[in-house]
Amino acid sequence: MEPLEHREASAGLMELLEELAVYGADPEGGVTRLLYSQPWGEAQRYLAGKMRQAGLSARFDRAGNLFGRLEGAEREAGVILTGSHVDTVVRGGKYDGAYGIAAGIAALAYLSRTFGVPKRSLEVVSFCEEEGSRFPVTYWGSGHAAGKLDWALADAVSDPDGVTLRQAMEAAGFGASEQPDCRRTNLAAYVELHIEQGIVLERSGEPIGIVETIVGQRRYAISLSGESNHAGTTPMGLRKDALAGAAAMIAALEAMALEYGDPLVATVGRLDAEPNTPNVVAGRVRFTLDIRLDREDELARFCEEALARLASIAAKRGLAFEAANWLATAPAPMDARLVALLERASVAAGLKPRRMVSGAGHDAQLMAGICPSAMLFVPSRGGISHSPDEYTAPAQLEDGVRVLAAALYELAYR
Amino acid sequence: MEPLEHREASAGLMELLEELAVYGADPEGGVTRLLYSQPWGEAQRYLAGKMRQAGLSARFDRAGNLFGRLEGAEREAGVILTGSHVDTVVRGGKYDGAYGIAAGIAALAYLSRTFGVPKRSLEVVSFCEEEGSRFPVTYWGSGHAAGKLDWALADAVSDPDGVTLRQAMEAAGFGASEQPDCRRTNLAAYVELHIEQGIVLERSGEPIGIVETIVGQRRYAISLSGESNHAGTTPMGLRKDALAGAAAMIAALEAMALEYGDPLVATVGRLDAEPNTPNVVAGRVRFTLDIRLDREDELARFCEEALARLASIAAKRGLAFEAANWLATAPAPMDARLVALLERASVAAGLKPRRMVSGAGHDAQLMAGICPSAMLFVPSRGGISHSPDEYTAPAQLEDGVRVLAAALYELAYR
Repeated sequence: MEPLEHREASAGLMELLEELAVYGADPEGGVTRLLYSQPWGEAQRYLAGKMRQAGLSARFDRAGNLFGRLEGAEREAGVILTGSHVDTVVRGGKYDGAYGIAAGIAALAYLSRTFGVPKRSLEVVSFCEEEGSRFPVTYWGSGHAAGKLDWALADAVSDPDGVTLRQAMEAAGFGASEQPDCRRTNLAAYVELHIEQGIVLERSGEPIGIVETIVGQRRYAISLSGESNHAGTTPMGLRKDALAGAAAMIAALEAMALEYGDPLVATVGRLDAEPNTPNVVAGRVRFTLDIRLDREDELARFCEEALARLASIAAKRGLAFEAANWLATAPAPMDARLVALLERASVAAGLKPRRMVSGAGHDAQLMAGICPSAMLFVPSRGGISHSPDEYTAPAQLEDGVRVLAAALYELAYR
Repeated sequence: MEPLEHREASAGLMELLEELAVYGADPEGGVTRLLYSQPWGEAQRYLAGKMRQAGLSARFDRAGNLFGRLEGAEREAGVILTGSHVDTVVRGGKYDGAYGIAAGIAALAYLSRTFGVPKRSLEVVSFCEEEGSRFPVTYWGSGHAAGKLDWALADAVSDPDGVTLRQAMEAAGFGASEQPDCRRTNLAAYVELHIEQGIVLERSGEPIGIVETIVGQRRYAISLSGESNHAGTTPMGLRKDALAGAAAMIAALEAMALEYGDPLVATVGRLDAEPNTPNVVAGRVRFTLDIRLDREDELARFCEEALARLASIAAKRGLAFEAANWLATAPAPMDARLVALLERASVAAGLKPRRMVSGAGHDAQLMAGICPSAMLFVPSRGGISHSPDEYTAPAQLEDGVRVLAAALYELAYR
């Protein structure tokens, strides 16, 4: 390890992050860069340019994932990949996903100019999608890279405006069968650097987090149908109020999650009522349910009990109830040897690391299915993320890149 | 009374109702005819044409209220007015409001051709707005006719797209100071015919309802601010989830209303969460609250207790809470002499009348402030209203017009 040599690894990092945040800058604050939207396309083209400026060859695959490559001397050796996702939630922050891409470009540029041609090829990826914020699909980028997704899914899901994933993908210039296949078969390792998006590191005062396991998740689309009716002439006892039913369900879910305790989290983040008018009893409500836990068996049991509880509330109120599971991921353990390597690199850089669980899902959990994978975290101020208030100090961001560069050096040059 | 002569009073009624329902026909079902929208303007112009075909002189006032007039012989006598409102809720029915206008046009046409010039002038009105479905304002039509509204309000309120009431009004061709003043000063009586929008008449089997009192109402805009955050990395105990807070409030309101009992109703019909994304804890929620009761003192007390309860729930959860009251109407008793006249007319027509309370607000409660006013109801199938399923059988609609025509005859020709 030559930690001192890696202090220059983050050159250009902050400038790249600020410039990238312009694509999708939301007038109401934060960044909204949804899959295949115009700002999404502008951001990917901007990143391809930055990769080429860094001396990397840039290419897009069929899904719109962007790869920047530093060719290694040993052509047959497996590729060392780093990076993250370019999409954001609605009014998200500047660092979620973007940091891992910017850090990868900065680290590869630094390693190339400092140490020249690596033994093993190094690549940085800007995955097209991870958040599931536009379509009821997540990991559209790393899922394809891992060979886990079927293209037919693109015709089966639509955004809130009724645009199918296929239509959006083709409008953005992707999805054509003649475009490069997404599946990666030559990877030796995947290392993702990301902001924690939680409050653990800030509270403990540790600068680097090393993920041992990424929690498993379930997401459901819940639909309630009652009876739309006049708010003044329908006695309380004769109502089939879908919004009152949804409220009872959300209250019950919150109570169940609090009773189970950490690290389980259950969230209803989206709710849409119809007709959504002050003087009309809501006849229909759709809401989403997101449940996460680091143990698969317990997660499955909790979800089963939660859905049974919601169904019984609907039955008592005479509401039609439907629950569609559209995301189910198992907890993903990270590669033990990579975890140990990252720990050594962090210590060598004089940065005390903390082993932890990731409550957020990440592309690394998909990549773990096809190659040894690991993740590095840096602190998030106040644990705030998926918000315009998301923030990590430049010095902390640069610490992360130093550790990443040191680890990539070990993996590609030694 | 000559009930038999009034069997022809509803000629053309059903045709007019079907034609009117085309303006604002919603692709998702029902009729959506919001104040000053394009279909709203088309509907008013269509009605002006039907009034002229019926031999009435038609005129618009500054707010866009439309009046059709049958001139009486006694120029100095007060005017006998009937009618209702032309606007609808989102995906509402064909009869709410529209029926009272169509019935008035049919009745005046019938009286004119059958009995000639009346002693007192007869007018039918198509009030521009009553529902409060586009802007947080109700009775924009009858409120101006009753001299209860200030034009400055048009600059103070906006629709969900940020269009002010002033901008919408002027775009529709109204609101100019040179247009006819709205305030009516020469009215001798106002009689409004409307569907019940409740289940009382259907359950009792009585064909005609005569309103003795219209309930008082309060409407509030509730705003909750918490902290938008990552759904996976924010422990349940550290959240400031505005949507979970709103759910607890809606559940508490429902319980309070059920405990108070009929005829009190409390409704949360509209709820909007931000950012409204599956994997983000909602940082902000706005919802509406509509509370109605026929006793002013009890209504005021219940609202005070309900808001205190919501505020305490917000405080427990660390949510910022704001409640803005944007509608407050006192219960409105109808004119005893008109109620008696309508009862006689109904009995004379062989239709058993039922005296009742109106749980819905109506233009008649505003008109009651400037002239003797009363209301007639006909049954609503299943009590369903403010819904595409709103329905009253043609024979029942025609019964209502017979009673209305008989009453207008007594008021204008005797």
